[in-house]
Formats: sequence, structure tokens, C-alpha cells
Amino acid sequence: MSLLTVGTVAFDSIETPRGCAERIVGGAATYISLAASHFTTPIQLVSVIGDDFPSETLDFMEKRGIDLKGLQIREGEKSFFWAGRYHDNMNARDTLDTQLNVLADFQPHLPEGYKNPDYLMLGNLTPQVQMQVIEQIEKRPKLVAMDTMNFWMDTAWDDLMQVLKKIDILIINDEEARQMSEEYSLVRAAERIRQMGPRFLIIKKGEHGALLFYEEQIFFAPALPLYEVFDPTGAGDTFAGGFMGYMAQTDDLSFENMKRAIIYGSAMASFCVEKFGIQRLTELHADAIEQRVEAFAALVNFSTHGNGARRRV
Amino acid sequence: MSLLTVGTVAFDSIETPRGCAERIVGGAATYISLAASHFTTPIQLVSVIGDDFPSETLDFMEKRGIDLKGLQIREGEKSFFWAGRYHDNMNARDTLDTQLNVLADFQPHLPEGYKNPDYLMLGNLTPQVQMQVIEQIEKRPKLVAMDTMNFWMDTAWDDLMQVLKKIDILIINDEEARQMSEEYSLVRAAERIRQMGPRFLIIKKGEHGALLFYEEQIFFAPALPLYEVFDPTGAGDTFAGGFMGYMAQTDDLSFENMKRAIIYGSAMASFCVEKFGIQRLTELHADAIEQRVEAFAALVNFSTHGNGARRRV
Repeated sequence: MSLLTVGTVAFDSIETPRGCAERIVGGAATYISLAASHFTTPIQLVSVIGDDFPSETLDFMEKRGIDLKGLQIREGEKSFFWAGRYHDNMNARDTLDTQLNVLADFQPHLPEGYKNPDYLMLGNLTPQVQMQVIEQIEKRPKLVAMDTMNFWMDTAWDDLMQVLKKIDILIINDEEARQMSEEYSLVRAAERIRQMGPRFLIIKKGEHGALLFYEEQIFFAPALPLYEVFDPTGAGDTFAGGFMGYMAQTDDLSFENMKRAIIYGSAMASFCVEKFGIQRLTELHADAIEQRVEAFAALVNFSTHGNGARRRV
Repeated sequence: MSLLTVGTVAFDSIETPRGCAERIVGGAATYISLAASHFTTPIQLVSVIGDDFPSETLDFMEKRGIDLKGLQIREGEKSFFWAGRYHDNMNARDTLDTQLNVLADFQPHLPEGYKNPDYLMLGNLTPQVQMQVIEQIEKRPKLVAMDTMNFWMDTAWDDLMQVLKKIDILIINDEEARQMSEEYSLVRAAERIRQMGPRFLIIKKGEHGALLFYEEQIFFAPALPLYEVFDPTGAGDTFAGGFMGYMAQTDDLSFENMKRAIIYGSAMASFCVEKFGIQRLTELHADAIEQRVEAFAALVNFSTHGNGARRRV
């Protein structure tokens, strides 16, 4: 099944307790499409870059089945750039620099062949741009997911609320869910956010896993305890890309299958953080993904009843 | 199977965002023994109180199969008292007052009939007192678990290291594991701590669940996402009590059974936080416990393969 995604394609400069990387390839749509490319094809990407973006990366993305007809390349301009530094705990980070560049006046344009995607993933971008993408879609996709961030809650709340009414799944982190709902309990937060539009809500908790809320049901996917986290950049987008890629591949909208999709997304994110930037995603093979999904199953698997019969006291 | 526990029996004054409770019954051994009393009998309790402790609570504990022969009652003296205030997120708290009272010169004394317990749970106390209990045991129990805290790492490191060599399972929280190991990654932390003595390590992460480490294996137990947390006091001790109570009841030391024990401990802790102090533990029935364990299974259960056959892309 086809997956359309919109989001940034960009450069990042990253400092983590494990090291530094200068101007490496990043961006939400880059991580989303690369992660999804391990599951489904075609992937249609809508974004904008300057003429400074490495052609080898674009070639590699095309080789992985990512269609770049929707990627605008602006001559004489620069790609979006973000620089940040992670704290020791890797959960918090400071933004050191943000240069919007080509993103400042980005108008997404969906080429012919992009207007009827089976699955749609709206990466974190201004809600207006997310809405512009939705408005160009001719037939409602089977599943529409979106990411957003605190900044849009502070600066574009009304637009954000409009987009929320058009989607099926919101994928955000715990801090964002608390801000959006003004509730500390994630169960209460999920209740309020789902009243704003999305039937499904995924709350990502970084190293603490992810929660899926749907009607009265809750599914919890752990994060794999890792020996070392090298660089958390892109982990959330990789999660979303793996999730939506798996959904598009299996084309099964049941809650049971959505649980599996979250485990596949978590597995992809666990690879992402092992190296700087997109590197680990570019060298990944199907066997390793399957092995990691099995590791997730082993991590949480238990049977409620053993040989020692449980007595009531 | 018999379970011996040592720890505080005390009063707590608690402020949480949900309300306040003045001088209510608390203490590690209180929570441990009450939680364990839902699984096994006899439970032998070693601790000390003043003459200010309510006899109704002691009567209730005895009715639940908790043997109080090892509980010293000091006439004319006061029980241990702790006062604390929880932050909005309920994960952090400030200590407002600590009055050691009878605990200041506590010397544990194991009565006849206490010296051959099948299972031993050393609640959080000075490592010297924990060692004094171990030294009075005549035959090594099947399983020895202990809790400790940052304060003993700061003030009694060498004693703590001696006790660690005598036990099977250390049960601590993530912050304590990081301080003890000087490692941020919990996988690395677990590796180092297990080199200090305990074969098994349980790291409690509060609302984020708990991890069990043994040899190359890791098991992750989620915490149940709750609509409301009323009072987190005693949740860790309740977890330990449920865990050791289930181990003593089933008397099965396999890793598989230990996983189940962690789920039972997590279920007990999820009840504990629903009301102030020990209240929820005193009104709990076996059916509710079984239902909650099933809720834990439903929360994390997934199958790795669905109907939509996974293709490799």
C-alpha cells in the first residue's frame, strides 16, 4: 500500500554525551520515509530542501523506494538546519540553533499520483502546512496519522485543533500530551485529547516505551533497555515511520495489528538511537528487524499461571 | 512457605496534590507484610515501635496472619515518624521531617521460630541492622531480597557492600541503581550491581514499570496506567511484599515464576497508590488481585504475527 508523508528534510548538528556530529542529514520526513521503506512501497515524500542537500542521500532514498517527485529543490537557497545538545539523561535537550531557510515559506504541493495515498503520515510541521496537504488529498486515506509539538500548541492552537479533527491517530510524547490536555495522568490526558478529534492516540515516553489508547483499551509497548544510547535524534520519527510502514504493508486496521505496528515502530526506534543520525537505518536488514521484534516479545512475555497453583489466602 | 521481613513500622504525614493525611500508619515492614499477607502465611515481622502505635492496626495485622512476636514495643517511647510532600508529578518528593525515635538504637532480635524462614525480605533500613538479621538466621533461606536507599550509599557504603554479598535479589529504584553503579544506562547499571553480589536485580521505575535482570535475561513489567494516583507512599514496599509473598506462596524459583511474581507485585503497588497509606491494602480481596493481573497481561500482550503475512521489502 502507498504511504504519503510530509515533513522536514534537513541538516542537524548534534551533541550528545557520546560525541558530536556536524551538519548530518536529518529531518522528520527523512526518518519517517527511511523507516517505512523497510515495510512498504511506494513511499511518497512531500518536503522542501535547498541546493545544499547531498545528492547521494537523495539517490539512496530513491533506491529504497522513496518517490521524491514531491520534494521541492530550491536553487540558491539553504535547507532547514537544527542544532541541539542532549543532556546526560538523553531525554532532555537544548536547541542551540534553528535556521528555517527554505522552510520559512514552504507551500506543500502534491504532484499527480500523490493525491490518493492509502496511508498518510503528517510529520511535525506547522499545522497550516499539514492542513494544506490534507486539502489536496482527493480520497480519504485508510489511516491518517500526525505528529506535532509544544511550539504549535503555543503559537497555532486553533489551526492545530482544525487538523486534529481530520486525522485518525495523533502520535506525540508524554510532555506534549500533558501540555495539550492540561492533565498530568496520561489516562486522563488521552481521554481529553481523543475528544479533540483523533480516535487513536499514541503517547511516546522515550526510554520508557509508548502507550496506545483506543476506546476503553490501552496497549503498552516497552522500549528495549539498551546498553548504550548514542543519539536519540529522529527516534520519534523513526517510530512513526516504522508504525505507519507496517500498517501500510499489512493493510489491517484492527487493534491487534496496530499493537504489532507499535512494536515494529519501537524496534525501528531502538535501532535509530544506536548511531548518529540516519546511519543505522541505512544499513539495516529485515532479519535484524525480525530478531529485534522477537526481543520485544521476550522482554514483556509472561504467563499468568504457572505450575505452582495459586492458592487464595 | 514462611516469609520473614524486617523494616520500619511507623507513622507518616503525607501531602500530595490530591490531599493531606496526618500521622497515618506507614513503614516499610507494614506495607511489605500487608501486601505479602495476600499470598502466604506465616509472615514474621521484625521491627520496633513506641507505645503510641494503634492497637487496632496490630490486631488487624495479626488477623491477616502476620506474626508480631518479633515486633518490639518500647514503653514510654515514640514510633518512627516521617513527613513528606509529593511534587505534582508524584515521582519526586521532599522530606519535611524525620524523627527516628525508637529506630535510633534499634537492635533486631529474632525470637525462636523466626530463625529458619523460607523467604527473607530485608526492608530499607541501615545496612548494619540488615546484617544483624542475616547473622541470626540459622539456615540460609531459599531466597533473600533486600531494599536500600541513596542515604545508605552516602553514609554506609562499606556495610552496604557486605550485605549485598549475602543476598539474592536487590530491589531498588532507577535513581538508586544509577547512584550505586555510577552508570546512566540501566543495562550497564545492572551489570555492575550484579557484580557486587546479588544474582538478581529488580529496578523499579515508578509509573514507568520495573525491570528484572538475571544473567543475560531482562524482563520488563509495565506499571498500569492509572486514571489517578492518590498517594505513592509505600508503593515500592508493597511491590516488594507482593513479589516476595507470591514467591513464598508458589515456592518456585524459576525465572518464569519470578516474572509472574513481579506482575503480582506491580498489581499490589497499583492498588496501594489508589488511596492514602495502607487503606487500599486493608480492603483488598483475591478476586480484585486476579483481575488486575489479567489487566497487566492485556496491557502488554501482543502476537508477533498477524493475518497479514509480513513481506520483506
